[in-house]
Amino acid sequence: MAGKKVLIVYAHQEPGSFSGSLKDVAVAELSRQGCRVTVSDLYAMDFEPRATRKDITGALSNPGFFSYGMEAYEAYRKKALSSDIVEEQKKLQEADLVIFQFPLYWCSVPAILKGWMDRVLCQGFAFDLPGFFDDGFLKGKLAILSLTTGGTAEMYSETGDRGDFRYFLWPLQHGTLHFCGFRVLAPQISFGPECASEEERRGMVAAWAQRLNSIWEEEPIDCSPPWYFGR
Amino acid sequence: MAGKKVLIVYAHQEPGSFSGSLKDVAVAELSRQGCRVTVSDLYAMDFEPRATRKDITGALSNPGFFSYGMEAYEAYRKKALSSDIVEEQKKLQEADLVIFQFPLYWCSVPAILKGWMDRVLCQGFAFDLPGFFDDGFLKGKLAILSLTTGGTAEMYSETGDRGDFRYFLWPLQHGTLHFCGFRVLAPQISFGPECASEEERRGMVAAWAQRLNSIWEEEPIDCSPPWYFGR
Repeated sequence: MAGKKVLIVYAHQEPGSFSGSLKDVAVAELSRQGCRVTVSDLYAMDFEPRATRKDITGALSNPGFFSYGMEAYEAYRKKALSSDIVEEQKKLQEADLVIFQFPLYWCSVPAILKGWMDRVLCQGFAFDLPGFFDDGFLKGKLAILSLTTGGTAEMYSETGDRGDFRYFLWPLQHGTLHFCGFRVLAPQISFGPECASEEERRGMVAAWAQRLNSIWEEEPIDCSPPWYFGR
Repeated sequence: MAGKKVLIVYAHQEPGSFSGSLKDVAVAELSRQGCRVTVSDLYAMDFEPRATRKDITGALSNPGFFSYGMEAYEAYRKKALSSDIVEEQKKLQEADLVIFQFPLYWCSVPAILKGWMDRVLCQGFAFDLPGFFDDGFLKGKLAILSLTTGGTAEMYSETGDRGDFRYFLWPLQHGTLHFCGFRVLAPQISFGPECASEEERRGMVAAWAQRLNSIWEEEPIDCSPPWYFGR
């Protein structure tokens, strides 16, 4: 939708990868709609995943004992977070929609993207206590996990040996994104592109482009526990 | 148990932290039993979490297109993985029990520990296709997640707003550890130490030491999907 701002947080090492194609087609389709699209290409940025003392510029609130969460919270309020975190927070603050594009590593995001979540979504910026779930500070924004898997759709079904994919998306969709206030759209899962034919891969890229064409009309999924597990 | 080998993979920035106390008491108790205990102190090691081209020494199998999983698999077979990965694989190979000690970050492990999993547990070393779950290459070894939370036990219950803790442990216990063949012991969860009294904190450390006293007699939990979600 013209005028909307989109942030794509992208975590793949290889520009020519299937994940790269999904990112590229999203940039193209959303730009065509008149959206302003920003990409955080984490590997290209050599984004720091480790949450350390270096994230706080200047003196610590408690110099004798380093508690990352508490220090990051204080540093956010005192504008003393490291510049790479501040930069990502600015992009996130401006975005109407955030797309996370990544290959599934151990039923979750790759460490470089986990580090983006650990460091950027700090208390004070993304949430507070109180100020989480529907009152999270990123409320009003949409988020989508767009991921590729090694396994097939069957493996990630209720009867598959990895179990229903909603189980492993729970910590990300509910525990992280919903916690920060995001309205979460259904995940875009491209199953097993490495085992697929070239035609099937093209089909998956086209399906993603087509979905993005009407993405602004979608309703968020219900992330709350009872529904999520079918109770 | 005398003669057993234990690896503690420890992810906290501050030696004086509550996580540090849990790690220290585990080293003391297991050493007292006559175990040989090794600690991978990830922050002290400045462990690299990013899975990149640097993990493969020498030429790539496919120089034109970087697929991390495939290249790491080949590099494992050709003994061409970077030395920091090889070092952790050696420690893991020798261990009878692996304890992961960490604070919960976004319902999962901190990025530095996720990176340890992404890079160390590569195909060929930890599993193959086939060669996973009960046939995973780390079968015969025990694993425990020992974690601290910000929230209370009630928040992580079936009726709490974070949902039953087993949901967010699923990708780690089933999708990662069980996938590699580990027999997973019940998690040790120290709920909300930052909100607890000094006496309560001492009680949590003592409870962990006491559990470790008879850890070798414990039966693994059943990680398989139907049980896990109470069906």
